[in-house]
Amino acid sequence: MRTQIAIIGAGPAGLLLSHLLHLQGIESIVLESRSRPEIEATIRAGVLEQGTMDLLTEAGVGERMRAEGALHHGIELAFGGRRHRIDLTELTGKAITVYPQHEVIKDLVAARIDAGGPLLFEVSDVALHGVDTDKPSVRFSHAGAEQIIEADFVIGCDGFHGVSRAAIPASVRQDYQRTYPFGWFGILVESAPSSEELIYAHHERGFALVSTRSPTVQRLYFQCDPSDHVDNWSDDRIWNELHSRLENNDGWRLNEGKIFQKNIIGMRSFVSAPMQSGRLMLAGDAAHIVPPTGAKGMNLAIGDVKLLARAFEQFYRDGSEDRLNSYSADALKRVWRAEYFSWWMTSLLHTFADATPFQREIQRAELENVVSSRAMATALAENYVGAF
Amino acid sequence: MRTQIAIIGAGPAGLLLSHLLHLQGIESIVLESRSRPEIEATIRAGVLEQGTMDLLTEAGVGERMRAEGALHHGIELAFGGRRHRIDLTELTGKAITVYPQHEVIKDLVAARIDAGGPLLFEVSDVALHGVDTDKPSVRFSHAGAEQIIEADFVIGCDGFHGVSRAAIPASVRQDYQRTYPFGWFGILVESAPSSEELIYAHHERGFALVSTRSPTVQRLYFQCDPSDHVDNWSDDRIWNELHSRLENNDGWRLNEGKIFQKNIIGMRSFVSAPMQSGRLMLAGDAAHIVPPTGAKGMNLAIGDVKLLARAFEQFYRDGSEDRLNSYSADALKRVWRAEYFSWWMTSLLHTFADATPFQREIQRAELENVVSSRAMATALAENYVGAF
Repeated sequence: MRTQIAIIGAGPAGLLLSHLLHLQGIESIVLESRSRPEIEATIRAGVLEQGTMDLLTEAGVGERMRAEGALHHGIELAFGGRRHRIDLTELTGKAITVYPQHEVIKDLVAARIDAGGPLLFEVSDVALHGVDTDKPSVRFSHAGAEQIIEADFVIGCDGFHGVSRAAIPASVRQDYQRTYPFGWFGILVESAPSSEELIYAHHERGFALVSTRSPTVQRLYFQCDPSDHVDNWSDDRIWNELHSRLENNDGWRLNEGKIFQKNIIGMRSFVSAPMQSGRLMLAGDAAHIVPPTGAKGMNLAIGDVKLLARAFEQFYRDGSEDRLNSYSADALKRVWRAEYFSWWMTSLLHTFADATPFQREIQRAELENVVSSRAMATALAENYVGAF
Repeated sequence: MRTQIAIIGAGPAGLLLSHLLHLQGIESIVLESRSRPEIEATIRAGVLEQGTMDLLTEAGVGERMRAEGALHHGIELAFGGRRHRIDLTELTGKAITVYPQHEVIKDLVAARIDAGGPLLFEVSDVALHGVDTDKPSVRFSHAGAEQIIEADFVIGCDGFHGVSRAAIPASVRQDYQRTYPFGWFGILVESAPSSEELIYAHHERGFALVSTRSPTVQRLYFQCDPSDHVDNWSDDRIWNELHSRLENNDGWRLNEGKIFQKNIIGMRSFVSAPMQSGRLMLAGDAAHIVPPTGAKGMNLAIGDVKLLARAFEQFYRDGSEDRLNSYSADALKRVWRAEYFSWWMTSLLHTFADATPFQREIQRAELENVVSSRAMATALAENYVGAF
C-alpha cells in the first residue's frame, strides 16, 4: 500500500487528522489495533473546549455534537461548605460542550467510512521503519496477512502505550513525568442529572466531580487510592462517600440511581519532547498525558492535529516544510500551558495525604483567592475554555 | 505603672499601634528590648502597599515617606532571557512605595516621642501575667529596676522570637510552618540604581532581586544556601553571580559599586493561630512570618494594627468587644491570603534543588502564563499591591 500520510491509531487525534487531510485532498490510511465496537464504546473524557467545538464544526463533523452535546457556560467550585460558580462565558466570551469522547469517535469513524477510508481495525504487530529517511513505512499484520504502507510521513496517534513514541531516538528524547498519589474512581449512573453544570468539589475526604453524560446518565468521580479495586466499593459505600464529599448545608442533593459501571483510573502528567523526529510526528496521548482535572486530554490531541493539518496543507501546496519543522515547538507551547493548568487544577482540588497543616491552609487560601478575585477566576476560566 | 494598652515591641506594629491609639485618646506604653539606635538601623523590608501608605498618611506619619520614598507603578519579572513589566497601577489602580522599614520606624519613634511616649527601650526579662483575666500585667526590668505595668490589654508585637506568642496556651494554639531550602544573600551597594523598578528574576542559577534603597544605594539579593556564610562570598564572586542571573542579551546592565553590607537571611512561612487569647493579642511577626518574595511582611503587621486600633476604638467608645473578639479571625483571613501569595511568588521564582524536569517545565509554563495572560498578571498585581 502507498499513501501520503500513515496514521497509527484511531483515537480522536488520528481520526480527525485523517478527516482534515481528506478535506484538503491529502490521502491517509489509519491503522487501529482495536475493533470498531471497542473504540466506539471506550469511556473517556467529555469536555470539548471552544476551539475543539469550532474545529469539529468547521470540519463538518460537529452536527451531532451540537444537537446532543450540552453547551455549558460555567462550572462550579465547591469547598468549605459552599458552591461558587465560575461563569466561563462572562469571563472569557467562550463556552464548553460536554459530549463524550466515544461519541466524537463515532462521528469521526462515520465520516472516514463515508469518505471511503481507508481505516483498518484490529491490526497488530505495527512497526515503524525509515522514519529518519524520506521514505518511511509501517509494517503490520491485518486479517492474517503481513502488510506494508509506504508513506511520506508517519503520524503516531497511538496513545501513551503505543509503539510510535519509541521510534523517536532516545538520544534526542526527554520524558517529563509526574505520577500523582491518587486516582479517580468513576461511575456511570442511571439517573437524571444532579446539576446542570460540572461541580468540582474539594473536601477534606478528597476531590469529587459531578458531571452528566446524558439526560438519563450521570458521570461521577471521586478521588481514591490508585491501587484500590472496584470490588472494594459496594454501591452503598460509593454513595456514602459521594454524599459526604458533595453535600453541604445548601440544600443541594446528589441524585442516586443504578450504578452500571465502575472503574479506577490513575493520574499522571507526562510529556515526551520533541514530538517529532525526521518523518515521524506524534500527536495526542502518544506525546503527552494530563490528569483529567483540567479536562484537557482530548482537546490537546485535537490541538496537535490542527497544527499538523495546517503543516501538511502548506507542505503539499507549496513544498514548504516550515510548519512541519516547527510542529513540535509550536505544539509544546500549548501542551506545557495545558500541563501547567492541569497540574494546578489537580493540586488545587485534591487532598494530599502527606500535606502539612501549612500546605492545607495554603490550598484553602488559594481556593478562596480563585473565587474572591475576578482576575484569578478569569485566569482559571481562560485556561479551562482554552482561550490560549 | 498603669495604662490601657501594654505593647511589647517597638517594631512597625507596636509603634504604629501606639500612635493610632494615641490619636484616639487611648493610652499605651511600648516596651522594647533593643536600643533606639539599634531599631533605627536594622535593615528590613522596604515595600509599602497602597493600604499601608494610606494609613501612614492618615495617621500623620507619612510626610517623609511621601517625600523620600519612591512611588512605583510597576515591577518587572525577568526569566528566559527577557524582562516583562507588570503594570501594577494599570492593572489595579494602585501603587507601592519603596521606603525602608527602618525609616518607617524612625518616623514612628519620632511621633511617639513628640507625643510624650511612653516608649521604653532596652527593657529585659519581659513576662506576661494574667492575660486570661481582666487585669493583665507585664513585668520587666528597665534601667536596673523591676517594673510592672497593669493594663486592660497586652499586645504582643515582639516578633517571631519574642515572648508573647508563648503566652497563648499551647492547648488552643496551632502553628503552621514551612522552611524553605534556600535563603537570600543581601547586599547594600554604593551606586546609582540599576533599574527604576524592582526586578524579580528567575534564573536556572537561582532567584535574584534588584531594588533601590536611595538614589545612591542599591539593595540587591540573590538566592543562596541558607547555611552559607558571607565570608565565603568575595565581592567579585557576588558580582559574577548577580551578573549571571540578571543580565541577558537585552543590553540592560547591573551597576556595580562598593558593597558595604552583606547578610544572609533564611526563608520561612509561619502562622500561629489563634492570634489572641483572653486579653492578649498578637500582631505582626509575633504571629506570622512570610518569605520576603511577596514584600508582605511589614504590610501584614500594619494590617493587624489597623484592625486592633479599630477594635479598641469600638471598645473604649461603646464598651463593645465585638471587634476585639473577632480580631484573630479577621486578621487571619488577610494573613492566609498573604501567606498564600508569598508562598506562590517564592515557588514561582526560586529554583528548587530537588525539582524534577517536569516541575521545572511547569514552573516555566506558569511564568509564561503570568506574563501572557492579563488576568494572571492582574491576579499577581492585586495581591502584590494588597488590593484584598
